[in-house]
Amino acid sequence: MPSFSQLPLEFLSIEEARRLLRKKEISPVELVDAALARIERGNPMLNAFLTIVGDEARHQGRAAERAIRRGNASGPLHGIPISLKDNFWTRGICSTAGSKILANFVPNEDSDVASRLARAGAVLLGKTNMHEFAYGITNENPHYGPVRNPWAQERISGGSSGGSAAAVATGMGFASMGTDTGGSIRIPASLCGIVGLKPTYGLVSVAGVVPLAETLDHVGPLARNVTDVCIMLQAVAGKYPKGARAPDHRKLRKSIPRRFRLGWPKQYFLDRVDAEVRRAIDAAGKTLESLGARIEEVSLPHLAGSVEPSTNIAMAEATRYHESQGYFPARSAEYGEDVRKRLEMGRQVRAVDYLNAFAVKREIEKEFQAAYARVDAIIAPALPIAAPRIGENEVMIEGEKETVRSALVRLNRPANLTGDPAISIPCGYTRAGLPIGLQLMGAHWSEARLLAIALAYEDATEWHKQHPKLS
Amino acid sequence: MPSFSQLPLEFLSIEEARRLLRKKEISPVELVDAALARIERGNPMLNAFLTIVGDEARHQGRAAERAIRRGNASGPLHGIPISLKDNFWTRGICSTAGSKILANFVPNEDSDVASRLARAGAVLLGKTNMHEFAYGITNENPHYGPVRNPWAQERISGGSSGGSAAAVATGMGFASMGTDTGGSIRIPASLCGIVGLKPTYGLVSVAGVVPLAETLDHVGPLARNVTDVCIMLQAVAGKYPKGARAPDHRKLRKSIPRRFRLGWPKQYFLDRVDAEVRRAIDAAGKTLESLGARIEEVSLPHLAGSVEPSTNIAMAEATRYHESQGYFPARSAEYGEDVRKRLEMGRQVRAVDYLNAFAVKREIEKEFQAAYARVDAIIAPALPIAAPRIGENEVMIEGEKETVRSALVRLNRPANLTGDPAISIPCGYTRAGLPIGLQLMGAHWSEARLLAIALAYEDATEWHKQHPKLS
Repeated sequence: MPSFSQLPLEFLSIEEARRLLRKKEISPVELVDAALARIERGNPMLNAFLTIVGDEARHQGRAAERAIRRGNASGPLHGIPISLKDNFWTRGICSTAGSKILANFVPNEDSDVASRLARAGAVLLGKTNMHEFAYGITNENPHYGPVRNPWAQERISGGSSGGSAAAVATGMGFASMGTDTGGSIRIPASLCGIVGLKPTYGLVSVAGVVPLAETLDHVGPLARNVTDVCIMLQAVAGKYPKGARAPDHRKLRKSIPRRFRLGWPKQYFLDRVDAEVRRAIDAAGKTLESLGARIEEVSLPHLAGSVEPSTNIAMAEATRYHESQGYFPARSAEYGEDVRKRLEMGRQVRAVDYLNAFAVKREIEKEFQAAYARVDAIIAPALPIAAPRIGENEVMIEGEKETVRSALVRLNRPANLTGDPAISIPCGYTRAGLPIGLQLMGAHWSEARLLAIALAYEDATEWHKQHPKLS
Repeated sequence: MPSFSQLPLEFLSIEEARRLLRKKEISPVELVDAALARIERGNPMLNAFLTIVGDEARHQGRAAERAIRRGNASGPLHGIPISLKDNFWTRGICSTAGSKILANFVPNEDSDVASRLARAGAVLLGKTNMHEFAYGITNENPHYGPVRNPWAQERISGGSSGGSAAAVATGMGFASMGTDTGGSIRIPASLCGIVGLKPTYGLVSVAGVVPLAETLDHVGPLARNVTDVCIMLQAVAGKYPKGARAPDHRKLRKSIPRRFRLGWPKQYFLDRVDAEVRRAIDAAGKTLESLGARIEEVSLPHLAGSVEPSTNIAMAEATRYHESQGYFPARSAEYGEDVRKRLEMGRQVRAVDYLNAFAVKREIEKEFQAAYARVDAIIAPALPIAAPRIGENEVMIEGEKETVRSALVRLNRPANLTGDPAISIPCGYTRAGLPIGLQLMGAHWSEARLLAIALAYEDATEWHKQHPKLS
């Protein structure tokens, strides 16, 4: 049986696929069929999809093929099969947000992202599994089962966009859209060995997305390489403010700076990081230096004090939303235990602490802004560890116990608090063969530069070319 | 002894004073001296000022006189003596915010409003007494004593801008600037028989003002007539958004509409209103009809449900500020009992309730917007009662007991919640000779129209021409 990495069609980049489609060397129908075949084979192992819309996808694939024949294929994602996390509303297609409460919810309209992708010509394969209501980062879903890590199926995919990451990593579609409130794009991207971007707060519309915590919620793409992430971002992004440069995937490689400055965090991001991860980040730093980066220390002295304030914001806003919908506490019994417990904790947050959290948020924003005045991007691990096992609640990091939740969230939450863009890209594997993610963070609206630096690194490395073997 | 109303200089309008100054029939020195004489006589009775800067005011008066002689009098308030509530920072002048905690606080910079008024040429007479930290509406200040109502000295002035209102009502300056978080401009204006405007949220800068609750805080003028309020507003206002008409006192009378529509609230504003007040409002409605108003009912069905949410916002934000400054709970003993108790209550507000309050806020904003789509302004009492006695905690209204706090706040808070402009203008007196205020509320940025309607009413009535006799 061939390993998936020997099946090229599903692992093409979007750019390559578009070129082959344009030349009529392949057809959208083939792309859709190949992706559906991957889903058929891989999904029973990984549990990445909650809903598969195979007939509709094939129908759209044929329509896309006809459009190409007629010379009508104008959208930038024309005929490209993709998936959406199940908290994006999709008209006529069940949108559970990974919950029992919305198990039978079929929206009568599309989220902004779903309709933008449809307008761009993308073909929707289905809706991906996720942590219940996006309120967790392991993707151990009590109602629909865990998403399994494609590199080691006894391990978590990470979440809450775990189904999206597992699907993209295994060729079940070229890309997916996820949401990220405390790392929910970057965590599964890192654990599954793909690229995940949390863009600047507000850049991608959250309309029609089931919210988690509205001041921290971000929508962003997951794909197998930086250029594909850029293409996806362009398809869904709103307007950049005056003076900011919107990313353009065709100019991305040309815009890689010859010399650039990278910040190496003096505090927080490199505390308590697994040795294998640390080595990979150190090596990534060296690679980036060889590509023109000057690395200098940046100081973020108050970041450690932002963990509790971030949590207060997230918990209060999440509980508020679930109360406002009449889900909580009225239907407490229908939540998984972890989400219910967190919703209960959210009721205890005091308004004064919530407001103080915003004072901390402004302080942290300023610290990062001061850093970005000196450097183009900050380099950090996406996570201090590789994928933990399903069911594991605690991990040991450098001889210290830590909850899985804390370990997976702590390096991601800062960019949610500031709203600055952050990307996770593959930067190595542990000896056990688990992917490691490099995180690059930049100033508000700096996606064009952040993606260019990420692309420079990607071009110089082979990590993104490895694909998990499903068996 | 002449009654004050027979002393014309202090009771001139700003417009008249400017005309006489221009013609050199009077001098700024005379205006300042007259105001200071009023303060010297009246302040021991009323306790309106916490700080009087007589020497500096005389100095400025002389400088203003010299400028006029040189033909250099360009500012719209050139040589006009005014006062500022003591929560506005004034460089080099004690700014207590009515508190013991800031009893000796001398700012080293001006609030935006103080510097704008200085640039406009106004002469500062002093800083006015207020409810401690603006956190109350009776102006019974435990540290500096109550401000007494100029119409009945055993009664409250109302607050928290009570010193400003008492000063302006008695000719201790032409106008004053106050703040209004739950009625703190309109309440004392109404109880003291003058005009008080709470402008659109954000129109006047709060920079350098000791905050109470930042999402409800407004800065606005108090004066003896509508035109003077307009002149003051123009001197301190920021920019209007595109498409909105900024008020211009020179065009105000010309811009009075021949026909206009007034909303008569079906709910809330006319529930539980003292019979004398109700008669005055009914009569004001008739007067406005005779001036071209078509009065129609407007429905605000959810307003009654906004009282508790408003209170939650105010209490949480107030406590948060006092905590952030290290005042509370560290220096609890230095607060008056009422303010300390409210700060303690603020600690108990849950973040979820705070966030829900903003959902209610948006709902109420929409209800008012729907009303303003049909009418130019909404008419209501400023208060359901005239001035209660000092020390009184409860009042009887139409046979029902109510706390003074609730009675004075409840008709004012809605415009703080929506951020819409609202003005209180004199519309009558009780048999006991206490002023009654008419409240006109309008849509965001509609000050120009609101002031024009208020001026139409003022022109048709004599209430604003009556001044209290101090003895």
